[in-house]
Parts: sequence; C-alpha cells; structure tokens
Amino acid sequence: MSETMKRWQLPSFGLKNLELAEAPLPTLASNEVLVRVAAVSLNYRDKLVVEGELLPDRPTMPFVPVSDMAGEVAATGADVSRFKVGDRVLGNFWTQWIDGEPPRGMARHGLSLGGPLPGALAEFVTLHEGVAVKAPASLTDEEASTLPVAALTAWSALIETGRLKAGQTVLVQGTGGVALFGLQFAQAFGARVIVTSRSAEKLERAKALGAFGVIDTRAKPDWSASALDLTDGHGIDHVLELVGGDNISRSAAALASGGRIAQIGFMKGSEIVLSAVPMMLKRAIIQGISVGHRRAFEDMNRAIDEHGIKPVIDKVYAFEDVRAAFDHLERGPFGKVVVRFKSEVGS
Amino acid sequence: MSETMKRWQLPSFGLKNLELAEAPLPTLASNEVLVRVAAVSLNYRDKLVVEGELLPDRPTMPFVPVSDMAGEVAATGADVSRFKVGDRVLGNFWTQWIDGEPPRGMARHGLSLGGPLPGALAEFVTLHEGVAVKAPASLTDEEASTLPVAALTAWSALIETGRLKAGQTVLVQGTGGVALFGLQFAQAFGARVIVTSRSAEKLERAKALGAFGVIDTRAKPDWSASALDLTDGHGIDHVLELVGGDNISRSAAALASGGRIAQIGFMKGSEIVLSAVPMMLKRAIIQGISVGHRRAFEDMNRAIDEHGIKPVIDKVYAFEDVRAAFDHLERGPFGKVVVRFKSEVGS
Amino acid sequence: MSETMKRWQLPSFGLKNLELAEAPLPTLASNEVLVRVAAVSLNYRDKLVVEGELLPDRPTMPFVPVSDMAGEVAATGADVSRFKVGDRVLGNFWTQWIDGEPPRGMARHGLSLGGPLPGALAEFVTLHEGVAVKAPASLTDEEASTLPVAALTAWSALIETGRLKAGQTVLVQGTGGVALFGLQFAQAFGARVIVTSRSAEKLERAKALGAFGVIDTRAKPDWSASALDLTDGHGIDHVLELVGGDNISRSAAALASGGRIAQIGFMKGSEIVLSAVPMMLKRAIIQGISVGHRRAFEDMNRAIDEHGIKPVIDKVYAFEDVRAAFDHLERGPFGKVVVRFKSEVGS
Amino acid sequence: MSETMKRWQLPSFGLKNLELAEAPLPTLASNEVLVRVAAVSLNYRDKLVVEGELLPDRPTMPFVPVSDMAGEVAATGADVSRFKVGDRVLGNFWTQWIDGEPPRGMARHGLSLGGPLPGALAEFVTLHEGVAVKAPASLTDEEASTLPVAALTAWSALIETGRLKAGQTVLVQGTGGVALFGLQFAQAFGARVIVTSRSAEKLERAKALGAFGVIDTRAKPDWSASALDLTDGHGIDHVLELVGGDNISRSAAALASGGRIAQIGFMKGSEIVLSAVPMMLKRAIIQGISVGHRRAFEDMNRAIDEHGIKPVIDKVYAFEDVRAAFDHLERGPFGKVVVRFKSEVGS
Repeated sequence: MSETMKRWQLPSFGLKNLELAEAPLPTLASNEVLVRVAAVSLNYRDKLVVEGELLPDRPTMPFVPVSDMAGEVAATGADVSRFKVGDRVLGNFWTQWIDGEPPRGMARHGLSLGGPLPGALAEFVTLHEGVAVKAPASLTDEEASTLPVAALTAWSALIETGRLKAGQTVLVQGTGGVALFGLQFAQAFGARVIVTSRSAEKLERAKALGAFGVIDTRAKPDWSASALDLTDGHGIDHVLELVGGDNISRSAAALASGGRIAQIGFMKGSEIVLSAVPMMLKRAIIQGISVGHRRAFEDMNRAIDEHGIKPVIDKVYAFEDVRAAFDHLERGPFGKVVVRFKSEVGS
Repeated sequence: MSETMKRWQLPSFGLKNLELAEAPLPTLASNEVLVRVAAVSLNYRDKLVVEGELLPDRPTMPFVPVSDMAGEVAATGADVSRFKVGDRVLGNFWTQWIDGEPPRGMARHGLSLGGPLPGALAEFVTLHEGVAVKAPASLTDEEASTLPVAALTAWSALIETGRLKAGQTVLVQGTGGVALFGLQFAQAFGARVIVTSRSAEKLERAKALGAFGVIDTRAKPDWSASALDLTDGHGIDHVLELVGGDNISRSAAALASGGRIAQIGFMKGSEIVLSAVPMMLKRAIIQGISVGHRRAFEDMNRAIDEHGIKPVIDKVYAFEDVRAAFDHLERGPFGKVVVRFKSEVGS
Repeated sequence: MSETMKRWQLPSFGLKNLELAEAPLPTLASNEVLVRVAAVSLNYRDKLVVEGELLPDRPTMPFVPVSDMAGEVAATGADVSRFKVGDRVLGNFWTQWIDGEPPRGMARHGLSLGGPLPGALAEFVTLHEGVAVKAPASLTDEEASTLPVAALTAWSALIETGRLKAGQTVLVQGTGGVALFGLQFAQAFGARVIVTSRSAEKLERAKALGAFGVIDTRAKPDWSASALDLTDGHGIDHVLELVGGDNISRSAAALASGGRIAQIGFMKGSEIVLSAVPMMLKRAIIQGISVGHRRAFEDMNRAIDEHGIKPVIDKVYAFEDVRAAFDHLERGPFGKVVVRFKSEVGS
Repeated sequence: MSETMKRWQLPSFGLKNLELAEAPLPTLASNEVLVRVAAVSLNYRDKLVVEGELLPDRPTMPFVPVSDMAGEVAATGADVSRFKVGDRVLGNFWTQWIDGEPPRGMARHGLSLGGPLPGALAEFVTLHEGVAVKAPASLTDEEASTLPVAALTAWSALIETGRLKAGQTVLVQGTGGVALFGLQFAQAFGARVIVTSRSAEKLERAKALGAFGVIDTRAKPDWSASALDLTDGHGIDHVLELVGGDNISRSAAALASGGRIAQIGFMKGSEIVLSAVPMMLKRAIIQGISVGHRRAFEDMNRAIDEHGIKPVIDKVYAFEDVRAAFDHLERGPFGKVVVRFKSEVGS
C-alpha cells in the first residue's frame, strides 16, 4: 500500500472548486477498518453538500464529499472483530444508529457520512467497524455502492417502518434512485407498483421493470384520480413522496384507508400542505423518513441477495469524471449515477 | 314498558328545529338489544350534524341526533348472546369496526351512530349486540356516557396507535373532552402532560388535574419554544392536534425525534401546513385519528376501571334542557357536557 | 336450481359410516350466501372429526364434515352486500374471527366450519356473508379449496404473527399441506427454506419446489445439528413445528437468536418438552397457531395472486371417491388432497 | 482519589473463597467512565457465578463478581460525551445490546457484567460510556442498585416484549426480585396482579403491596384452577414463569386466550413440559427472556421516576458483610438483597 492516495476535495464549497488532490492515507484507529474504495454513488444530498446548501456548520476544509461507497477492507485496527481484510463493505450513513431508536440529538447533530463527517470520494477511507456492513455477495461493487442512502431510504419507508404486505399497492414518484429501489423492493415483496413521472420515456422504462401502472403527470397533473382508477377506487397503501410541495395533497387524495405516505423528498418545495378531514377518515399516516439504521441495512442486504435484486444504474463514470457525474445527477437520472475508482475493481 | 317514548328529533336540520316528540318504541331485531338511555354526552360533531354541516347524504327525517349514550339493556332479541337484561352498555360509534382494520369503504360510507345512523337522544334505542360494549363498572351512567367518542379518540391516539410509554411527554391542545381524556390516560400510563389553552383559568384547572406543564397560547402564540423549554429541549413525544390550521406547524416544531402528532381536530382550519425537513430529520409521524374500534373500546373500559379514571364533566343538563347543553358546547366546555334522562337513573 | 342436492353425511361417527345422501337445499337467511361447492380439500382435522376423536360435544346427526371448500355464490340473502351471484368464495374456518383478537371464549367454544358447524361435503352450503372471502382470481377452484385451513395456518405462523423478513431462514417439518404452503410463502417473501422429512423421495420433490436445504430425518434423527450446519451456525429464524412430541426440543436447539417456533402439529405426541436455558439465552418464542382470521385470509389471497403461488395438490378425487381421498390423507400426501364436485366446474 | 481500592474477589470459585483485597484503581480508557460504586444488589445468577456453576469458560482470576451496581461517575475518559463527573449511573448487564436485536452471537458469547466480564463488588469500576445509563433521580443508590438485572428482566417481559395493556391480568410466581418488580410495573400500568407463593406470610406482604389476588401453592399445588377462578374463568394474560419444571404446564393451563408466558426462572428444573393443544387453541406465546437492552433500561428508568416506583429491598448489608448477603439470597428474600459500600453514600 502506498503512503499517499488520490481524493476529490473541496477547499471551499461549490462544485467548480472540487479538485483532485494527493493526500496521505488516513490513520487507522484500533476499532476502525481501512477501506479501499471501489465505487461511489451520488445522491442529490451530495450535490447540496458540495454547493454548501446543506450543512449548518461548515466542516473542516478541504472537505471530501459523497456519502455512498463500496469497497474492500484493506487493513483492520487491533480491536476489530466484525471484519477481516478482504471483506467487501459499505458504510452506514447515520454512523450512530444501530437499531431501534437513534441516540437523542441525532436529528440535530447527526454524524452522517459525507457531511458533516468526511465522505468517500477518496481511494481510501476509514470506518469505525460498527459503521460498516457487509456488501451483498450477489452485487458488483458498483451496484453495491448505490445502497447506503437511496436503497436504505426506500427500505426503511416500505419495509422497516411501513411493514409492506404482499398484495398492497405502492406508488413511487419519479424514477430516481429511491423511487426505483422502492419499485424493486415492493415488487419483490408481492406488491403492485404505480410509477408517476413527467417523462413518457421513463415511464416506458419503469414498465419494463415491471410497474403495474404508470401515470404521466405532465398529461395528468391531478394524478390522484388516475391512481384511484388504477386501484378500482381502493387507493394506494404506500406512497413514497419524493416531489414535495402541494404534491403531497394529491398523495393524500390517492391514499387508501389506513394508507401511509413516506415523506422523503421535496424537489418542488418543502412545505407540506394537505387536508385534515380525509386524513382522519382514512386514518392516514405521514411519516418522515431519514435513511435508516444498521440493522435494517443488514436486513436489506440479505433480502437483496435472496431476491436477486439488481440496482438500476443509469451510468457509470470514471474516477476522473466526477464533475460529469454530478452534472448527470442534476439532469435527473433513471436510477443511480455511479463513479468507479479503478477499472480492475468491481464488475 | 310503555308503548311510546320521548325523543328529541330534527324534522329538518338546524338546532332551532330540534323538537321534543312522542314516538313509538323501536322494534327489536333478533340480534339487537333495546337500551333504556340514561345519559348522553355531546360532541362538537353532534353540533355539526344538527346544523346540517356534516352528513353528505341527508338522513331520513325526522332524525334523532347525538352519538354518545350510556344506558341499560331493557330487552334482548332472541339471538343475543353478548348481553342480558340489566347490563349497562355503551354503543360503539363506528358500528362496523370490531378490531384491526375496518371494512373497506368505511372511510367513505361509514355507518356511525348519531349520523348517518340514528342517534341516542331518545328514551330507548336499539343496538346490534355487536355494536354494544359494557360500561365500566366504576363509572356512573353520566360519566360512562362521555366515553364513546371523546375518550375512545384519545385512547386510539395515545394507546392503540401511539403505544405511549411511561416516561414520555404528551401535549394536548385545549381542555375539551378529547384533551382531558388524553391528559388522564397519559398520566395513568406514566407520561407527563403539557396542556395548551388560551384561558389562564382553564390552565389552572388543568394543573389541578395533574398537568406537568401548561402553556398560555394567548400569551405565547408561538408556543413550540415553550414546549421545548418544558422538556429540556427534548421535545414532545405525542401531540394531540386539536386546533388545526397552521397550528400543526408548531406541533411539528415542538416534536421530539420519533415523535407523533395525532390529527384529531381542526377548529382553526382544515388545511395541514408544515415543513418537510424537520419532519424527516425527526422521523416524525402524523396520524389521522377517527374514534376507534370495539376492541380498543373494551380495552379502554378495563383500563378506566383499573386506574380509577373519572371523566371530567363540566355540567350535567336535564333531558328538557338539551338546547342549553348544545349552547354550552359552543362556548367551549372544560371536559364534557352531559344530558341526564331521568333523575333516578345513573348516580 | 333443483330443490334437493347430494351430500356426504355421517349418521354417526366413523369413516365407514360416511354415506352419500339426498337432502333438501339449505334455507338462506337474509345475511347469508348460498354457495354451490366446486371442490373441497381434506385436512387431518377432518379425519379426526369423522372418526369422532375431536369434537367434545357431539354435533347434530347426520353431520356433514370437511372444513375447506371453494365454490360459487348461487344466491344471496336480502341483506347481503359483500358478494353477488357468481362470485367465487371460500369460507373462513373460525367463523367469528374477523381481525385482531377473536371473541373471548372462541378457544373453548369456537364455531368452526366442518365441526361443530356443518361442513362442506355437500353440493350447496350457506355461509354468513361475513364468513366468506373471495377466492384468489389466479387459482382454479380445486387449488382455491386448499387454502382455508392449511394455507392460512402457514400464513398466520410466518407472516401475520411471525412477521417473516426477506433473508431469514425457515424450517418446515414434513411435506404436508401446511409445510408446503410454508415453503411457498417463505420463498415468495425472500426467505430460504429447509425441509425435513423421513422420505428421500419427498425431499427430492421439495428441492424441485425450490427448498434451499433438505434434511432426511430418517438418516439424521437428531436433525438440529444439520440445520445449524446449513445456516453456518446461525440457526433457524422460523420453525413450523408439525411433528410434536420431543421433536420440538430439536426445533429449539436449531433456533437462531430471536427465533420463533410456530406450534401447529403433533403427529408424534402432544406434550411439548424442551430446555429453558437456551430458550432464554436465544430469547426464543414458541407460539401456538390456530388457523387465522378473515383479514389475514384476505391478505393471503392477495399475496397468492400477486406472487402467482400455486398450491401443491397431490391428487384430485371425484365426488364419489371421498373415502379414497380420506385414505390418501392417512398415507401422508405431498401437499393437499382435493375432492372435485363436478367435472365442468373449476379448471 | 487514592491509588488503591478495596474489592471482593475470587482467587478461585466458591463462596468460601471470596476474599476482601486491596487492588489498584482500574485504568480508564478514553471512552470509559470511572464509577465509584455506592451499592450493589445480588441476583441468584451471582451465586451461580461465585460457585462456578454458570460460566462455561473460566474467567481470569482473581475474579470480581456481581452484576448489579449503582454509583457515581468519578472521572471520565477523554472521548466520553454521554456522562460527566457526578452523574449517578448503572451498568447495562448485556454490554453489547443497545436496542432492537442484539449482535449475532451474543447468546453464545455474551459479554455480560459480573461474568464473564468483571463485576461490581469493588469500590471502583470502569464502564464503557455506552454501557452506562443514568440512575432514576427518584431512587437512592441502594434502590437504584436493584434495577439492572431483576427490574429490567421484569420490564422486558411485561412491557418491552409483552406490551402489557391496562386492564390485563398478570401472574408472578414467588416474591423474589423479578416477581416484585413485575408486580409493581404491572400495577403501575393498570394491570391486576396475582402472586403465587408457598409462604402465607410472604403472600400477606404481597397483598400489602397491592396484589389483586394471591394463591398459596403449598395449599393448592395445582394452582391454575385458582388462577382461573380469580379471573372469572378468563385466565391470565401474562405469566412470569419463575419456578420452572412442570410448573409451566400449570402456567399454560391458567393462561387466557392470546396469553403469554415469559420464561425467566427455573428453580424447580430446566425442562419445559406442557401440552400442545391448549397452547394452539389459546394461541399462547412462550417467550424466553434474558434481561434486556439499554434503550429499554432507559425507558424503564423514566417510568420508575414518573410512577414513583420504589424497589422492594428485603435487607441492606454492609460492604464487610457480603457473605451474609449471599446467605440471605439463598434463603429466598422478599424482593432484593443489597450491599451498601459506604455509610455516607446514597440515602
């Protein structure tokens, strides 16, 4: 192992400032693993962090962004017992959240990977062994790198908190990473999925992935009626709310009795607006989702192996082309955007 | 038993049209019990029904309003096995909802007592035996009459769906029936309760009932900061949202991580407006509540007996003074308003 | 519709007394549906009922046995709203159990189809509309007839009470109806299944159905070590205990931490014997299972449609050959034994 | 702080070998707190550890026994953030179990305080900050020292896994620490409690603590009939099984439909023996309990403060009289046996 490594870092916020630099290998504490990063995937959150729009407190600069990565354990601290050299691992976004309830205060001062904690856009990173989880054996490194934020968010919404049952109907908004993981998990668990999008072409691709129904929201901006039609008036059991703004009022209108809305995204605005009376009559639940805990992550990885779920990757970029990858993110990918570190690593 | 009875009926909507009339005793089907009503309690819903503001389809007129009653079984149909003459019973508001999930379609076409189904403002009513539950032995008829809507709503919010734990903090808004039942249940289960009100005098009475903290929202319209202060910054675990409008944004701001808002009332407006990001970071839940099922009703009644909980009755009116009772309701009672049918019945 | 029908009836207990008879059509109450039976499936319980070994109180004779049936609604009572003529329906074994907790006393005086209530071995039966559920559209009548007892038992054990998660490991004992439904449900939900049997040939058939592992308990009577080996020492998350006697001590030894044993069958003896200390250290759960409620039945039927699960039928007998079907049951079928009523009905 | 401290240690197993010794203060790691122990309480497990009957692998000798302690933080490591000097703390028995599911392998190689990890019979101990929890403010040190094993076991059985509801009936066996905590928690949550014992005098004391019913099992060895009588035939909702052997078959016979047995103790034998059929008809649950996780511990402490629950201490011994305290344990105390370290500490 050489003494230095390459990494993408921000001397100050702004995508234009993102620079490729040489840096010393991180030092390894006794309870940490050193991970040789094979691939990272980008989330919209990374974009906000890079642009300086998310973190309330400025992290130490230069800052290495990006939350998601997959890699191989290259070395282990003296007290590490959960992993050994050669294991393929991912990092759990909320580093303090193991199972059940997170530590008090995590909502305000959460120590999450990729901001405020350093991210994974580097050849090597260190992780407390308690933060790492095994990558699913059935996935390539590139595929596995897409899981920590987007997949775990969809899993937490539908499975861990939503307790999705076979035969239910799920609606996902758009065709980004969380939406498509929601589609895949729901289908694997025997649910029918409806996808909304403003792009007819993306809806075709969603159908090819097995969507039970699709709604073109450019053609039908008041899409809740279409959703009710597609379910014979019964309504949707689980909505992944990924649009935000007044869109959630349509999600509520499309809901079945006892249905749930997982509040995840807010592209169109961060104010939730909806009517109280139908919510009460339907005994509807709106639940805020914030990625998930390590136990759910491990549950999800087993399910991915068992069901043979393959993450949908829109495009893989080379390590040098990180800026192009961020640009792709901005245009709205179909599934995930990945950056591969070395040609010989991964699939 | 005489062949006729007195009842209050609406030949057409409007409180001013409410008239005392003589009517034949209701006929008893084989699976029904005939109940001699001892007391009824009023809910704001009854007011809306009487004024013609609630039921989408006009019921058969003359219509007998009021959902809540306590009475004694005076006769039983041939197939009745759950009750015998002399049992003290209450009626379950949602007549079709026994346990678990309600029948599909209940949200839109629910058969609830006091509209669209006939109500209890009559000396005798019939109930399908599956709709009746035993009154708690430790309560008088007047006290028991307050339970079906207000108490079961608070119970469903905090216990049945909210799974309240001892040591948590609950906030109830105002001092109406649901709020005070919420206060009493929460305290009996080992939770601390904060009460908000625009009336300093009512807050004093809430303190006398054991409230851990009170917030005068006339003095502090942005009351969420006070709620955070009262909980050392931790926030509220369960909010009973009884005000509505933009008040729920303050409820959300006052919430602890993993906290829940039970959406119940909407005095100030039926639009829910709040911010998505704190909801997500706190993994907050908003759940619409609509009274509850029979099994929860029976659970609650056992708990009331066991904990010795006594409903807070603001005033008891005589059968003849029903209109005055409705006027009291309009003024905002402290707890419940009850109408007693006969002086010799009940306590 | 003719005025009479054929049925198999018991003038007194004993399979040899089972006789084919002509009987009047049952009369239809206002809340009942009349069902033209298309197929029934046999459960071991039917055998015990026929032999007079199960029902504590002798039912009215002649008695029509058999719990499971699938058929078509031929007529509806005046008050029926859940079904219409032509609907394909099944009957819920525990007629009083809709959702959540069953009525108190059901354990002692349960009104179950096929004893003490009349069964389905007749061309027509009546069902209270609340007892009927829609048959899955994707199944033939013969397939659908296998669901009410065996499939719902497996579903209640694994899904409704067991909350099976993808990636877990399930062990089912033997290859009867409950075991194979357990295998199919678990696989559809992303679990790995291990099957035990004393027959190498049946284990081959289980493998063909997708079993992850098989254990020949004739070769390895102390099979728990094999189960631990097959799970890399982790153990089994859910055991369907279908053998009974001291076999459950092996089930407990094979269990993972936090694992569950669903107590369902007791071919080898009805005494449960096992060690307390490993149960405590593993925080193991043993739960008695007794078929299930109507809401779970409806959930299951949606899941069967959605996942395309096809019940495993060992053999279909003609209506005239009911006694041969009971004999087959005695020999231990691979999956279910079905009796078809008319050649033109069903598939 | 002096450089040395006193501690009771075992150079080899056997109560007679327990010796008072001078030892250096433990060194403090960066994530640990140094705790000045104020009081310990004894559990029967400590007795087994001291006698060498419990730990499969011999710990390093001399070994300091005893799992339960309450004390004050005397110093904190550099990285400690959860506690500060002066905080009153307790230690969580299962040091690796924070919330939800414990780490895989804990059942076989669990790192529990008081064996295999060093125990608390020393003037100072160190705890990883993640293992410590705040003592309830409303308890003295002596009272607080009784919580970690006995109270958390009862809490895990009834509240965390049992989800006890007000109005239910609980049966506890005997009057040891777990039984009396079970009594107190259940009563605080609105349940009625029945206590069994072979001592009429202890049953009187249980009545004085509020027991709803008592059963003298010396007079009525087949006590399940008495339990059914006391519940009008309904049966027990939660049994804390603390006796073991064939006693659990009586627990099962006394159970209500849907009831639970928490398997905790096995004084009379470690083989569980009971009948399958009633378990199935009642849909009974037997769950092995093994103390509990830190989050439940913290929940419990809040509940203790909120409900004002005071642990029942049979006798407090001085630090010098540890052997007498162990002898008392052998005789079957009423509640807990405590050892106080200094006269000036605690209440």
